[in-house]
Amino acid sequence: MSTTGTNRSCTLASRPVGMSKAENFSSGDAAIEAPGDGQFRVKISHISIDPAMRGWITDGPSYIPPVQIGEVMRAGAIGVIEASNNPKFPEGAAVTGMFGVQQYAISDGATCNLVDLSLAPAERWLGGLGMPGMTAYFGTMDILKPKEGETMVVSAASGAVGALVGQIGRLHGARVVGIAGGPEKCAYVVDELGFDACIDYKNDDVNAGLKEHAPKRVDMYFESVGGDIGNTVFGHMNTFGRVAVCGLIAGYNATSPEGLGYNPLAQRSMLVNRLKVQGFIVFDFASRYGEGAKAMVGWMAEGKLKMKEDVRGGGVDAFPDVLNELYTGGNFGKLVLAV
Amino acid sequence: MSTTGTNRSCTLASRPVGMSKAENFSSGDAAIEAPGDGQFRVKISHISIDPAMRGWITDGPSYIPPVQIGEVMRAGAIGVIEASNNPKFPEGAAVTGMFGVQQYAISDGATCNLVDLSLAPAERWLGGLGMPGMTAYFGTMDILKPKEGETMVVSAASGAVGALVGQIGRLHGARVVGIAGGPEKCAYVVDELGFDACIDYKNDDVNAGLKEHAPKRVDMYFESVGGDIGNTVFGHMNTFGRVAVCGLIAGYNATSPEGLGYNPLAQRSMLVNRLKVQGFIVFDFASRYGEGAKAMVGWMAEGKLKMKEDVRGGGVDAFPDVLNELYTGGNFGKLVLAV
Repeated sequence: MSTTGTNRSCTLASRPVGMSKAENFSSGDAAIEAPGDGQFRVKISHISIDPAMRGWITDGPSYIPPVQIGEVMRAGAIGVIEASNNPKFPEGAAVTGMFGVQQYAISDGATCNLVDLSLAPAERWLGGLGMPGMTAYFGTMDILKPKEGETMVVSAASGAVGALVGQIGRLHGARVVGIAGGPEKCAYVVDELGFDACIDYKNDDVNAGLKEHAPKRVDMYFESVGGDIGNTVFGHMNTFGRVAVCGLIAGYNATSPEGLGYNPLAQRSMLVNRLKVQGFIVFDFASRYGEGAKAMVGWMAEGKLKMKEDVRGGGVDAFPDVLNELYTGGNFGKLVLAV
Repeated sequence: MSTTGTNRSCTLASRPVGMSKAENFSSGDAAIEAPGDGQFRVKISHISIDPAMRGWITDGPSYIPPVQIGEVMRAGAIGVIEASNNPKFPEGAAVTGMFGVQQYAISDGATCNLVDLSLAPAERWLGGLGMPGMTAYFGTMDILKPKEGETMVVSAASGAVGALVGQIGRLHGARVVGIAGGPEKCAYVVDELGFDACIDYKNDDVNAGLKEHAPKRVDMYFESVGGDIGNTVFGHMNTFGRVAVCGLIAGYNATSPEGLGYNPLAQRSMLVNRLKVQGFIVFDFASRYGEGAKAMVGWMAEGKLKMKEDVRGGGVDAFPDVLNELYTGGNFGKLVLAV
C-alpha cells in the first residue's frame, strides 16, 4: 500500500457573502496518508455537487455544523478502496461516503456504503441511487403521499431530485407538472421523463402555466426553490394539499432576513387551504435507505425510472466553478465532478 | 307565535380596504318573519365576534363564500327558540348556530346545536364550549400533539382560543409560554390561567423573551397572528417542531401581496428544523365536536380549564366598533356582543 504521491484537496478559504466565488476556496497538495486501525483509504473517482453545499459553508445553526475555514470542503463522493485495515471495507471495493472535495480520503466506514459498479456506473451511485435518489423517494412517499388522480407540481424538475420525484408521482397515478428553466430542460422533462407538462420559468409565466396545466389545482408540491416560484405555486394549492420543503435554492445566497420568504398570499394559502407544509432532510431517513434503494433499483430495472447525470471534468480545482453552475441553472441532470 | 315588531340587523354595505370601518356596515329594521315548514325562529341574545370575520367580508377564494353586499353579516350566535315548526328544535330551547348579526333569525337547524344553559351561561357557549373551544381542542390535540416536557408557545394567549390552547398544553405536561399585549393580559395568562410565562409584545422584546422563557427552544407553536411575532417564534423552533396555523390576524387587514409573510429566516427554519406547519379550520372537525365538547366540559368541571368572556353591550348597531376591538387588541377574553 503506497503512500507516496500527493493528495490534492479543495478547502474553504473564507465564508462567502451571497453567491460563493472562486476566492472562497483554496486548492493545495498534501501527502497521501496511510489508513490507521479500522480505517481504509479510498481513491476518489467522482464528487457529488449538491445544493445543500451552500448551507454547509454558512456559519449559523443548521442540521450539521458548518465547514470550518481551512477544512476540506464537505462532499459526498465515490471511489475504490486501495488500502484497508477494516475487513468490512476490503481493497478493490467501490464505496460511497462523505469523503470531501479531494483525491484521496481516509475513513472508518461510518455512514459509508459499499456499492456494486456492475449495476450502475459510479456517477449514478451519487445520483438516483445515492443521496438525491433517497431524497426523492422519502420526500415523495413519506411526505407528499401521492394518490391516483391528484396533481403534483415539481420545481427544479430536471434536477437530480426533481426528475425522480415527478417520475415517482407518475408511477402512482398522479398528474405531474414540472417547472424548469429553458426549453431544452422542459422538453427533456416531458419527452424523456414522461411528465404531463413542464413550465419554462425563464420564458413563460408560471402563474398562467399552472392555470393551464393544473386545472384541478395542486395537491402536492415538491419545493426545492422558494422565492417567486414557490409563492406562485402556493397560490394554486388545493384544499388539504401537501408541500414537501426539500430546498429553498432561491434564498440560499440571500444576504439579509428581508427579501422573499413565503409572502402573505402564500402564508394565507397555508391557513385557508389547510396545507401541511413539512421540511425534511434526507439524513433523517438514513435508517431506511435500504428500503428506498431497493424500490428505486426495482423501478429502474423495470424501465419506469430514468436517471441522467451531468459529469464535469477539471478535478478538484474546478470545484468552485462547478458548484456555481447549480445556482445559475447551468447543469442538466445530477451534477457530478470527475476527479 | 307573534310576528309583529321589527328585526334589526347589520348588513355589509361595502367591502373594506384595510381595517373595516363603520361605513362598511349598515343597520336597518325589517319585519320579523314567521318560520316556514321545518324551520324555527330564534331570538338572539348574544353574538360571537371572531377574527375570521375579516376574511368573510373579503371577496376572494376562501374556505366559505364571502358575505355579499347587502347581506346580513355572518356570525355565530346563541338565543332561545320562540317559534318552531321543527320538532328537533322545540320552543323554549337554547340553540347556537350561524344566525348572523341580527335580533331574530330563521333557521332549518342545519349546523345548529341545542345547548344547556344550566351548565354554563349563554356567552360561554359561544366561547370555550363553542367554536373557539373546538378550535383550541382540535388544533392542540390533532396538530400540536403535546408531549410531557416539551415547550409550547401560544400567540394571542389571552384570547378566546389561545387561553384554552395553553391550558390544554399544561394539562399534558408541556411548558407553556404565552405572548400577549400589555401587563394586565400577561398577568392574567400567568396568574389566572397558569401558563409558565407570558411575553408582553407591546412592551418587551419577543426574541429576548423567548430566549429567557423557552431555553430548550420551542416544540409547538400555536400561530394566530403571523407578522413579526410569527417570524420571531419560527426562529426559536426546535428540530421536528409543529406549528398549528389557526389564524394570521397581523395580515388580515393587509392590502397587498407584498409585506410580511413568513420571512426568509422563518422559511429556512421550516427546512432546517424539519418543521410540520399545518393550517386548519375548525369546521373540518365538525363531525368530532361531540368528542371535543365532552373533553372540554370534563376539564372545566375538574377546574383544570378556566374560561373568560368579554361581553359588550350596544346591540346590533355596535357591531362594527366591537369587531375592530379584536384587531386593536382591545378585548380581554372571548369577545361577545349582547343583543
